Amino acid sequence: MLNVLSLDEALEKMNNLCRMQVLPAETAPFGQSLGRILAKDAVCTENVPGFTRSTVDGYAVVASDTFGASEAMPALLRLAGEVQMGESPDFEIRPGECAAVPTGGELPRGADAMVMLEQTEPFAGQMIAIEASGAPGRHLIFAGDDAKAGSTIVPAGKKLLPQDIGVLAALGVVEVSVRKRPAVSILSTGDELIDPAGTPRGAQIRDVNGPTLAAACTQSGADVAFVARVPDDRPVLLEKMKRCAQGSNLLLISGGSSVGAKDAAADCLAELGEVLFHGLAVKPGKPTFAGTIGKTLVVGLPGHPAAAFFIFQLLVRPMIEALLGQATVRRTANAMLTAAIPSNGGREEYVAARFVGGGVEPLMSKSGLISVLSRADGYIRIPRDAEGIAQGETVEVFLFS
Amino acid sequence: MLNVLSLDEALEKMNNLCRMQVLPAETAPFGQSLGRILAKDAVCTENVPGFTRSTVDGYAVVASDTFGASEAMPALLRLAGEVQMGESPDFEIRPGECAAVPTGGELPRGADAMVMLEQTEPFAGQMIAIEASGAPGRHLIFAGDDAKAGSTIVPAGKKLLPQDIGVLAALGVVEVSVRKRPAVSILSTGDELIDPAGTPRGAQIRDVNGPTLAAACTQSGADVAFVARVPDDRPVLLEKMKRCAQGSNLLLISGGSSVGAKDAAADCLAELGEVLFHGLAVKPGKPTFAGTIGKTLVVGLPGHPAAAFFIFQLLVRPMIEALLGQATVRRTANAMLTAAIPSNGGREEYVAARFVGGGVEPLMSKSGLISVLSRADGYIRIPRDAEGIAQGETVEVFLFS
Repeated sequence: MLNVLSLDEALEKMNNLCRMQVLPAETAPFGQSLGRILAKDAVCTENVPGFTRSTVDGYAVVASDTFGASEAMPALLRLAGEVQMGESPDFEIRPGECAAVPTGGELPRGADAMVMLEQTEPFAGQMIAIEASGAPGRHLIFAGDDAKAGSTIVPAGKKLLPQDIGVLAALGVVEVSVRKRPAVSILSTGDELIDPAGTPRGAQIRDVNGPTLAAACTQSGADVAFVARVPDDRPVLLEKMKRCAQGSNLLLISGGSSVGAKDAAADCLAELGEVLFHGLAVKPGKPTFAGTIGKTLVVGLPGHPAAAFFIFQLLVRPMIEALLGQATVRRTANAMLTAAIPSNGGREEYVAARFVGGGVEPLMSKSGLISVLSRADGYIRIPRDAEGIAQGETVEVFLFS
Repeated sequence: MLNVLSLDEALEKMNNLCRMQVLPAETAPFGQSLGRILAKDAVCTENVPGFTRSTVDGYAVVASDTFGASEAMPALLRLAGEVQMGESPDFEIRPGECAAVPTGGELPRGADAMVMLEQTEPFAGQMIAIEASGAPGRHLIFAGDDAKAGSTIVPAGKKLLPQDIGVLAALGVVEVSVRKRPAVSILSTGDELIDPAGTPRGAQIRDVNGPTLAAACTQSGADVAFVARVPDDRPVLLEKMKRCAQGSNLLLISGGSSVGAKDAAADCLAELGEVLFHGLAVKPGKPTFAGTIGKTLVVGLPGHPAAAFFIFQLLVRPMIEALLGQATVRRTANAMLTAAIPSNGGREEYVAARFVGGGVEPLMSKSGLISVLSRADGYIRIPRDAEGIAQGETVEVFLFS
């Protein structure tokens, strides 16, 4: 008997398992942590910036000295000193004084505003004519404005982007605690499968799922430990699954999962470990199954490349993210449907789609071929009880990548 | 005198230069080409699939034999043979006959439809009871359905995603022609800059732009050839720029580009090559300049980390994409603004933003600090003549990543 689940039920079951075995942290140089998942909150140990600095080239002033100043009625202030870039001023400003400060330079104590160079004029005898009113805090970045000491500046679970690398640099966090990448093994099953380098004879076909799933795992932040084709030979499959389970956090098996002569993979899983569900109420992806061999998570994906890719996106990718302790963000975009999507209802359905002009075009295909996915920007979800979606309706598009 | 351009003018000027020196192609194994840019159309040399195959487990039939068949009135067909997975059938189907075919198996000649196993029943003496009407073409993928011989299946200029890797596998394209990655050198200028591993003394600050721009280049598909800090010392800067230009397709220099004591980098560029513009009518990013040293493209970015990052996104990333011959796709999403964005007008303005609930929140900061960008999902563009955008308006968000 099949134990068929909805996608949400399957996701909850598998994600709960993944969250119980989030991968350990390891240390990486911050410059090599792009795309890795931060394992611990990055906490600020000091104010950033550490001092109040100017955002313009000009003069540091006591703002009240300049109230009402204009080109016709400049305020005349004594030049008390010049701040050098990268150096802390060794003097302070008193009322009636000003100091030259470059962009990014430290504000001398006593000053509370900057006046831009363009609104000043050198005057005789070390005096500067200030031709505009300064307001307290004007043209300044205060100490701690960017990040206050003690505050979390990049939260654990975040996938590190270039701007996060920048924040880590600003904080001096040059060694970063990131999650180890999950090790994934991938088995493509089927007597008909040949290496993509080969030329199919008779009814042979090239293995598409092996390379596609490997690339999708890499893109999702996993390490691909092992990829192989396995014939429809139960003892061979059993042996391969056993071996792969030992060295991997996650084992993906494509093909061989439809009910009939070929559910050998699910049988092997039952023998080696535990089947948690067999069958998903999702189109495409019905023959999906999953379970565990020891602590290794196992997912059986459909043999059809497009169906396998959808199940990767819908189920496997969230599992990898859960193993990484990643805060998952699904990117979506709303767009108007350029053509109706018919649906029989009864099963949740996912349809590939691409953006065209201002709208989104469903890429219909009776079998969901991989070439369709290559043209797709994402997919549209059709709820279980909907009878399709009409042309012109606004739909949410879940973006691939 | 500054030669100030709008962003569009600057982009057109720089992209035209980049398109004249698109990088040469090189060969990569298809399994290692994830994220690379395809240099030549991938053309199908054969039909994919190469034969017509079944999408279900069941029986291949001549559809007209089954018209009107039902559970009460089954059509009785003689079992002519069984198709094995991965093998071409050595028999054909005549009217009155059927053949067992597994999911993915090749349809025997003579048959034009499949009937699902669940709608059949074995009968006495090699006869099969077909209990449903077959329609021609039902449950079949025809030869060439996925890709027809001679058709372009992945176009040149596409960034290869996992599903493209799958298409290349299906076609047997195991060596892929991809663009070489542009070599980029990055110089952070300023006496105040120290290594991120150090502890700032006085008015020193850690170099944020070097690591941020390096990660952003990597993310954009470039190779980072060289990253260094350079003091505000003209002869040193001149020498570094000269050296970097020799080994790089693109040289990025941050800081030292505002008018005043510190426009040494633009002066050096004028001495070593040609300045094409100095000043962008964009906020943030006004002090941006660009030009060439020989064939090497040079961009001077603002010293402020957030401004530098914006200019990378707005100007440098498109240039890298042009050097890669990449078909550029800017991901955008529409969302409702949760707070008003004030603007002085007069300059095109870019504001970082993050998605919250169903809307998008502008992340205002007088100086555009890097920690703000770390929290941002993308940015909002405010046109030159707009006086800000009101709360509740729907805006287009350009996504980072």
